[in-house]
Amino acid sequence: MNKIKVGVNGYGVIGKRVADAVESQDDMELAGVCDVSADWRIRVAVEKGFPVFAFDDASDQRMADAGVGTSGTLAVMLDGSDIVVDCTPKKIAAQNIEQYRSRNLKFIVQGGEKHETTGHSFSAENNYGTALGRDSTRVVSCNTTSIVRTLTALKSAGLLAKARGTLLRRATDPWESHLGGIMNTLVPEKEIPSHQGPDAQTVDPELDVITAAVKVPETLSHLHYWNVQLTRTSTSEEVLEAFASSTRTAFIKYSDGLPANNTVKELMLSLGRPYGDMYEVAIWEDMVKVVGDELFYAYLVDNQAIVIPETIDAIRALTGIEESAERSIEKTNKTLGIKTRFLG
Amino acid sequence: MNKIKVGVNGYGVIGKRVADAVESQDDMELAGVCDVSADWRIRVAVEKGFPVFAFDDASDQRMADAGVGTSGTLAVMLDGSDIVVDCTPKKIAAQNIEQYRSRNLKFIVQGGEKHETTGHSFSAENNYGTALGRDSTRVVSCNTTSIVRTLTALKSAGLLAKARGTLLRRATDPWESHLGGIMNTLVPEKEIPSHQGPDAQTVDPELDVITAAVKVPETLSHLHYWNVQLTRTSTSEEVLEAFASSTRTAFIKYSDGLPANNTVKELMLSLGRPYGDMYEVAIWEDMVKVVGDELFYAYLVDNQAIVIPETIDAIRALTGIEESAERSIEKTNKTLGIKTRFLG
Amino acid sequence: MNKIKVGVNGYGVIGKRVADAVESQDDMELAGVCDVSADWRIRVAVEKGFPVFAFDDASDQRMADAGVGTSGTLAVMLDGSDIVVDCTPKKIAAQNIEQYRSRNLKFIVQGGEKHETTGHSFSAENNYGTALGRDSTRVVSCNTTSIVRTLTALKSAGLLAKARGTLLRRATDPWESHLGGIMNTLVPEKEIPSHQGPDAQTVDPELDVITAAVKVPETLSHLHYWNVQLTRTSTSEEVLEAFASSTRTAFIKYSDGLPANNTVKELMLSLGRPYGDMYEVAIWEDMVKVVGDELFYAYLVDNQAIVIPETIDAIRALTGIEESAERSIEKTNKTLGIKTRFLG
Amino acid sequence: MNKIKVGVNGYGVIGKRVADAVESQDDMELAGVCDVSADWRIRVAVEKGFPVFAFDDASDQRMADAGVGTSGTLAVMLDGSDIVVDCTPKKIAAQNIEQYRSRNLKFIVQGGEKHETTGHSFSAENNYGTALGRDSTRVVSCNTTSIVRTLTALKSAGLLAKARGTLLRRATDPWESHLGGIMNTLVPEKEIPSHQGPDAQTVDPELDVITAAVKVPETLSHLHYWNVQLTRTSTSEEVLEAFASSTRTAFIKYSDGLPANNTVKELMLSLGRPYGDMYEVAIWEDMVKVVGDELFYAYLVDNQAIVIPETIDAIRALTGIEESAERSIEKTNKTLGIKTRFLG
Repeated sequence: MNKIKVGVNGYGVIGKRVADAVESQDDMELAGVCDVSADWRIRVAVEKGFPVFAFDDASDQRMADAGVGTSGTLAVMLDGSDIVVDCTPKKIAAQNIEQYRSRNLKFIVQGGEKHETTGHSFSAENNYGTALGRDSTRVVSCNTTSIVRTLTALKSAGLLAKARGTLLRRATDPWESHLGGIMNTLVPEKEIPSHQGPDAQTVDPELDVITAAVKVPETLSHLHYWNVQLTRTSTSEEVLEAFASSTRTAFIKYSDGLPANNTVKELMLSLGRPYGDMYEVAIWEDMVKVVGDELFYAYLVDNQAIVIPETIDAIRALTGIEESAERSIEKTNKTLGIKTRFLG
Repeated sequence: MNKIKVGVNGYGVIGKRVADAVESQDDMELAGVCDVSADWRIRVAVEKGFPVFAFDDASDQRMADAGVGTSGTLAVMLDGSDIVVDCTPKKIAAQNIEQYRSRNLKFIVQGGEKHETTGHSFSAENNYGTALGRDSTRVVSCNTTSIVRTLTALKSAGLLAKARGTLLRRATDPWESHLGGIMNTLVPEKEIPSHQGPDAQTVDPELDVITAAVKVPETLSHLHYWNVQLTRTSTSEEVLEAFASSTRTAFIKYSDGLPANNTVKELMLSLGRPYGDMYEVAIWEDMVKVVGDELFYAYLVDNQAIVIPETIDAIRALTGIEESAERSIEKTNKTLGIKTRFLG
Repeated sequence: MNKIKVGVNGYGVIGKRVADAVESQDDMELAGVCDVSADWRIRVAVEKGFPVFAFDDASDQRMADAGVGTSGTLAVMLDGSDIVVDCTPKKIAAQNIEQYRSRNLKFIVQGGEKHETTGHSFSAENNYGTALGRDSTRVVSCNTTSIVRTLTALKSAGLLAKARGTLLRRATDPWESHLGGIMNTLVPEKEIPSHQGPDAQTVDPELDVITAAVKVPETLSHLHYWNVQLTRTSTSEEVLEAFASSTRTAFIKYSDGLPANNTVKELMLSLGRPYGDMYEVAIWEDMVKVVGDELFYAYLVDNQAIVIPETIDAIRALTGIEESAERSIEKTNKTLGIKTRFLG
Repeated sequence: MNKIKVGVNGYGVIGKRVADAVESQDDMELAGVCDVSADWRIRVAVEKGFPVFAFDDASDQRMADAGVGTSGTLAVMLDGSDIVVDCTPKKIAAQNIEQYRSRNLKFIVQGGEKHETTGHSFSAENNYGTALGRDSTRVVSCNTTSIVRTLTALKSAGLLAKARGTLLRRATDPWESHLGGIMNTLVPEKEIPSHQGPDAQTVDPELDVITAAVKVPETLSHLHYWNVQLTRTSTSEEVLEAFASSTRTAFIKYSDGLPANNTVKELMLSLGRPYGDMYEVAIWEDMVKVVGDELFYAYLVDNQAIVIPETIDAIRALTGIEESAERSIEKTNKTLGIKTRFLG
């Protein structure tokens, strides 16, 4: 079988991870990575031996000046790609789309873009099938991905009536925390409901979900607290079983010495995960609480990593190289080392 | 009328504020402050001209060595007091109580102690009357005080069915943030429901309230997010009117340039509040949202200041110098400069 | 004697403090404060009863829309002023100067501006006399002010050969730490020497001083570490005596329970200082160390407050209402409560 | 050749890295790791297939209860070891030493212990030779290691007269930042000189070095600022050449987009380093400044990683399996991927 040639446009937080993930799939090959940066970031791509492309002539010149050799500009990369994953910063992808469309090139955008840019929003365990053979899709954002995964699990078990969440958002990513973060403060998002609830509904309109969000002064991961109205009286055992039906939701235990997101990060690093990435939604198993027909739980979302497996699955769905959601997910999980239990 | 002589045992975060607040009441006088510290903290009390007492002989010696003159030890202060407010660290007050009881001295403990230590838990707008003439009471904690104030307002308006809250707790106080805080992490409390819900019920058993709590890396104030099931479909206007029935709940506006707790702190400092203290629960007026029969809102709790007016009222209730909750609250509000609108 | 009418252009971190300080001088009166903001900040000025002016017609309209009544625009305020203190953001003052000059209005700019904008840089204890009767001066920045104060003291005692400093700079001010700070990182300034050394030389060209600076993730104050080559072998006692010759350098003691800048901030709040402001350079007395002919010490700089007394003195110098540096400084110190020992 | 059997006592921040590093040497094998913990930390060792030992019978029981199978207690591990690296927490190693000595087992302690515990302090590029065949040595601490490496390079080039440093210390390690850090504050060490200067002299008594240290609220790495009196007028080129003589000092460039320690951490993660570890002292090449006969520079110290290569070299020196410092260092550098330039 011919491998699918994947171009990655934008070599930032998401793009560099997508490139690595593509490299580890036996049914894909990396056509190249494309960026505007001429600093240490793109030089790491050179170090890794990736074909490097410049976003435009100006970038190409800057890279040349910085001693970064390229294989050409974006157009050249697109010529050699069967599909492109756009990982450029929020709102930029919308401007690139015309170029993809005019080449009849399949493409994936990330969650910073609007649903309307592709007309389809993707979350593998929920709606892989509806993306099969499409020209394009949007992998929903980190927060939304975590919401869809967990609520889909509750819904599939017939337990979900409505879900209300409070989302503590990391203020900025670790590598750019010198550029602008928040210090010794908390910054609520003005609008309640925040956008993540409606965003989850672009994947699954049946989800009754309302969220409020607040920025907190840390860089490691998001932390969600949920209060769910169940369809009936239940137990924590039944809820845990429901969550376990997702292959991308892993349990952690407070009593294992994992009471905070910094220790969970260290666990990921200790397990040898690249960047200490956690692709799974990490639910505190021993914090899950059912009171009558109400459910309470909290989980962590690694905002840099969680959408990577979704993106790999989206590549398979759009290109049709794998018709079965289950098989694609299993393959992705295996190659990325995704687990439902991190230890033992 | 003779002024009530108030002794303050423990001159820390709460004690120093209680002492200042007592000083500003025309029906009270400060019998003295008592502490174990011999450092800058107690020397500020000397600077203010307060009668200073040492907790015990050992403390007295240490203070003497540090050049801090005292008026004797705790026993002497208690001899000169009509009532004592115990502001010693969590769990210590429980050990002091026997001494108060053996003198037939009325006393108030703070929210770190258990309800059982006094058998009565106090929040002025909710249950002032039940504390009248009692020997002792417990002023509930900062978080609980904010919960009781806001939910009492909703309950009084006939709107409250049940309330579910997510509490973001400041990790430590600003002055002791060099001794131990949390850095670049989030630390959930393991138990859901957290203790604040049941604690609110020690004041008002009718409140249907469940909370989850998480420590966040900042020092300024707590931030609560609430999802309330109303008794019926309502509007944000109706809810705001209900909140306005509390004289210790003030509205702030995101659109006034107050989108975060650090700016609210600066507003308090700008208004000349001592320590930048905010005695009020500050509700973001323009974030209050009603969706059908569900209510969403967020507010700030100044954990160092919010219980101060409650403590002043509790002094009046126990000693019986004011039988009317309304009049005591009004007097306290006036002397401390408590407002329902901070500007204009 | 007629009071000097002082206009304050820019009601931000510095402007609001200058306005308060002017109000407390018996030889000055506040002509008004002027700003572009229409939010809570300017409304605090209204609350204080200050005459409020809008920077321009657009600002005036925005203030009107926000319900903030003004007494006119900047031009009107300048008409009623004998001198204007420009406290607008960095680099903006340079654009306002022409307006001041065309009115023959004396003016003061802050340390964010270049020395060339006025041709004179001011630090009261060093060069008050050279500013007498000038049209304008620049009060040097917070860091530079602290450097000039402390090194002038060492120089006056004949002890200073050369000084090398490492400056830990607070990343942002507390009230704006939601807008952009740094998180879990340290950001060196690229250039060594950093600009503060040469800046100190604009006040006193004889100072041999080189600095390096680094931004640290906190908001409270700057912290300077110094290594000084003395002119000869000395002792810590002699050095402390030299520092004590400055009336704006106060000693703090680590052993008094003041081991960090957050506790020093709390001490200021406890002493009732507005905003918890510290006008003094706070030198840790028990950290001062002399090794042979080398001196090591560390101090704190309250970047929001330290230039306020300098500005008040500069007003007196330019307007000539007080010819003696010593008397102006003494008057300012008294009105602002400036001390060489905070306790006892 | 028989491989040296290395036991690692203490599987924490240092111990787990030493174990990994030992595993990657072809002249060593891991006899096992020993700890008291029964939580996720030791379970990672199980996951890696390391022989796991319990510190004592009580630990063994706790591990058994937690489902962690061990190969016995410390004594068993020591029986199977040719040398033991003690990585237990500060001051604990001193208590273990008698046990090592009574077995005539060679041992290494870490920098938290005193020089006197072994009578020899080790830093590979400075004094490998003096450790050859000894029974024991102490690998000096992270800060001291960086000081000895950089000053040895200047000394070897005949440039070093005296060095004065300001050390910004990360407040706590990332994984334990939920247990106790500092928030929005700076905490100077009371004593100047701080202990690192004298500590460097335990390795090389000829170094004229004085340091001051301050804790800063971040977790990533230490940052040192230096002011060095050179033996003569020099240039930055000459200084850079001197630093380049160390194989464990790498240059980074501010102008490569690396202006802060968080970006340098991300670079390490991007290069696939385990834990994002940086074994090298990272000197900002474009910040090095020479003014006459004075030198100024700043560098980063990864406090979790920098002593790992030193420990590997110390194993070779004590056991005598490699007599040449140069060859041991080269071998260690190669296996750990240590570089003098990170990119290109």
